[in-house]
Amino acid sequence: MPELFQVVTIAEANARLSAHISPLARRESLPLHAALDRVLAEALHSPVDLPAFPRSTMDGFAVRAADTYGASESLPAYLTLCGEVPMGRAPNFTVGPGQAALIHTGGMLPPGSDSVVMIEHTQYLDATTIEVVRPVAIGENVIPIGEDVKRGELLFPRGHRLRPQDLGGLAGVGIVNVPVVERPQVAILASGDEVVPADAEVAPGQVRDINSYTIAAMVRRAGGEPILCGIAPDDPAVLERMARAALEAADMLVLSAGSSVSARDHTVKVIESLGAPGVLVHGVAIHPGKPTIIAAAGNRPIFGLPGNPVSAMIAFGLFVAPALRRLQGMPDADPPALQAVLTLNVPSKPGREDFVPVRLERRDGVLYAEPVFGKSNLIYTMAHADGLVRVPLDLTGLYAGTTVDITLF
Amino acid sequence: MPELFQVVTIAEANARLSAHISPLARRESLPLHAALDRVLAEALHSPVDLPAFPRSTMDGFAVRAADTYGASESLPAYLTLCGEVPMGRAPNFTVGPGQAALIHTGGMLPPGSDSVVMIEHTQYLDATTIEVVRPVAIGENVIPIGEDVKRGELLFPRGHRLRPQDLGGLAGVGIVNVPVVERPQVAILASGDEVVPADAEVAPGQVRDINSYTIAAMVRRAGGEPILCGIAPDDPAVLERMARAALEAADMLVLSAGSSVSARDHTVKVIESLGAPGVLVHGVAIHPGKPTIIAAAGNRPIFGLPGNPVSAMIAFGLFVAPALRRLQGMPDADPPALQAVLTLNVPSKPGREDFVPVRLERRDGVLYAEPVFGKSNLIYTMAHADGLVRVPLDLTGLYAGTTVDITLF
Repeated sequence: MPELFQVVTIAEANARLSAHISPLARRESLPLHAALDRVLAEALHSPVDLPAFPRSTMDGFAVRAADTYGASESLPAYLTLCGEVPMGRAPNFTVGPGQAALIHTGGMLPPGSDSVVMIEHTQYLDATTIEVVRPVAIGENVIPIGEDVKRGELLFPRGHRLRPQDLGGLAGVGIVNVPVVERPQVAILASGDEVVPADAEVAPGQVRDINSYTIAAMVRRAGGEPILCGIAPDDPAVLERMARAALEAADMLVLSAGSSVSARDHTVKVIESLGAPGVLVHGVAIHPGKPTIIAAAGNRPIFGLPGNPVSAMIAFGLFVAPALRRLQGMPDADPPALQAVLTLNVPSKPGREDFVPVRLERRDGVLYAEPVFGKSNLIYTMAHADGLVRVPLDLTGLYAGTTVDITLF
Repeated sequence: MPELFQVVTIAEANARLSAHISPLARRESLPLHAALDRVLAEALHSPVDLPAFPRSTMDGFAVRAADTYGASESLPAYLTLCGEVPMGRAPNFTVGPGQAALIHTGGMLPPGSDSVVMIEHTQYLDATTIEVVRPVAIGENVIPIGEDVKRGELLFPRGHRLRPQDLGGLAGVGIVNVPVVERPQVAILASGDEVVPADAEVAPGQVRDINSYTIAAMVRRAGGEPILCGIAPDDPAVLERMARAALEAADMLVLSAGSSVSARDHTVKVIESLGAPGVLVHGVAIHPGKPTIIAAAGNRPIFGLPGNPVSAMIAFGLFVAPALRRLQGMPDADPPALQAVLTLNVPSKPGREDFVPVRLERRDGVLYAEPVFGKSNLIYTMAHADGLVRVPLDLTGLYAGTTVDITLF
């Protein structure tokens, strides 16, 4: 009674689902301080030039560059002080030929001046005269209008996830409320007659629900809002009722399937019953995580993740996280990977991609990845790991000493 | 009138502050679902064995391994069915010699059995007899009691930041409330006569507050809770009053200093006045970010970050983020770095560490880092970048084509 899978590659699995999902239309406007890690619902352009006036990048004197040409230690230029630029206000005077105005970093260049001489290259001769011992070029030590960003310039495209510096950039041009995509609502439903809530006493034969916690946390990391829908028994009618109710209120449903073959079988049937197009993928050429189910009801993705916690986490990263990106209108992107040297051989079988949890350790400036071998039923395999190494489809393993890409989690 | 800095290295700067700060004592108990990315206030040990009973990792038959020794396609072992293990309950029968019990993945091994034969290696002869065509060893396809984690075993040390898999691991052993360190309260105070709130209309000479936004977001990323304390003018008395009030209600104060030399000078004096030990570092051998001030009042760290947004972000990553780790009791750790190939030469000066923002791009499977050159006054230098490359103290630059470490932000 072996299971019959129509196993597909990771890319094919994601492509099949992509064809059915599109970015969510729901959006909200958030103040900048609440917008960290949120995703822009539309492209933003600058309403202003930044800076809006020529700014000094140094403490020194605003001058006309031509007045300093040829100046040197032995033959200084002599300039007459005509004022001091106040911080935060426009100077109410003009720098004429042969004149200089005291200016501070960030100050506005007075009309007439075109450059700033650093204070280190000057000396007071008396209260109204300075010596300049080095020439400056026009524009030197000055940020011209719009150098940071120009009015009308694209700041960030739609689908951009806002980082600290992006919030700063928006503040700088006066955008203090941003249109962001609402967090996708992700219903999470565990299943299995043997699974009980984590706070329950367990009787022999029962195990606590692990996947609802790992999946909810991964949903949050991927920008979604988890909705916990409890634990369904291995009863197709009850599972179907609970799955239908869960999906009703959500943009996506993530089921963690029962672990037995019969439980997985009825999970497929229940998912198929939730609406067209139904099951798109049943089985992916990965280990662990092979029995992953990917489906859609209308434009709502549905995932049947394996019941084993390690498999569920790996399948989440490969399929659910990219789908959450797409629902938020984000461009497809691989998670950032870092390089490390494998400490042990990692065996694999050709025709599938193997994912092996690794622990990272830096010794003498070199980053090493030590495989954490363990059955995919063991959650502490993941808790003891820092990332995953992937063995490509066509290899039979990776040798110790190889430099490999590690995806952190 | 050059500034007089006693410039120190990054390591020395952090060491001077470390001597004055210790982990915060305030803690709270949180339900697991609210504990993602929070830091454990104490070590956690497992109250139970996981699993609590021997579990099957396969669909198949629970047997006595000895009964299968020597079994082959041509000479199968014949076993008599004695029951089916129900999911989620202890079997109420024993597997005797010559017997086998139907079992599903995750099911509890019945007493008497010591291993599981995969269903693929069996065949029903009739309703009560199966053929086994491959031998199994004792313990094969079984997770013994405590293989995932043993009762009393250390799960996570104090200071561990909880990831999705860690929450799953805690759920698995029934720990549903966790003692975590309270988020450090970080007062953020901008300063400068030229700085106005981001939502204000700007007059010529004024600029909007950028640093409060970038710093607040970086504080959140580092596990702290930002408290925005507004913008102080370049008036030492007012700055001191505002800084004192800000520090009163917080575990840490981050000032973004005015940009002129005189503003920086009075920032140092104000920080010095807030309490002993006072200023520990004034000037670090980095570019940008050299005029960074690091201080403490009692055991509360105080930072005077440069007013330039790029410098402020870089100094935050180097000094404020590690201090937030220490306040939360986390071990010191470098942020994860990935490797990329520089596309352009990056010049530097010996005797300082240069930090250059880079944009990452993957072409033909190779990750390239393209320097985003720009004045440190320009926030969009950072908004257009994905990470930072660091040029070590003793180098005069890095050549295009070199593989470099990139810190993401």
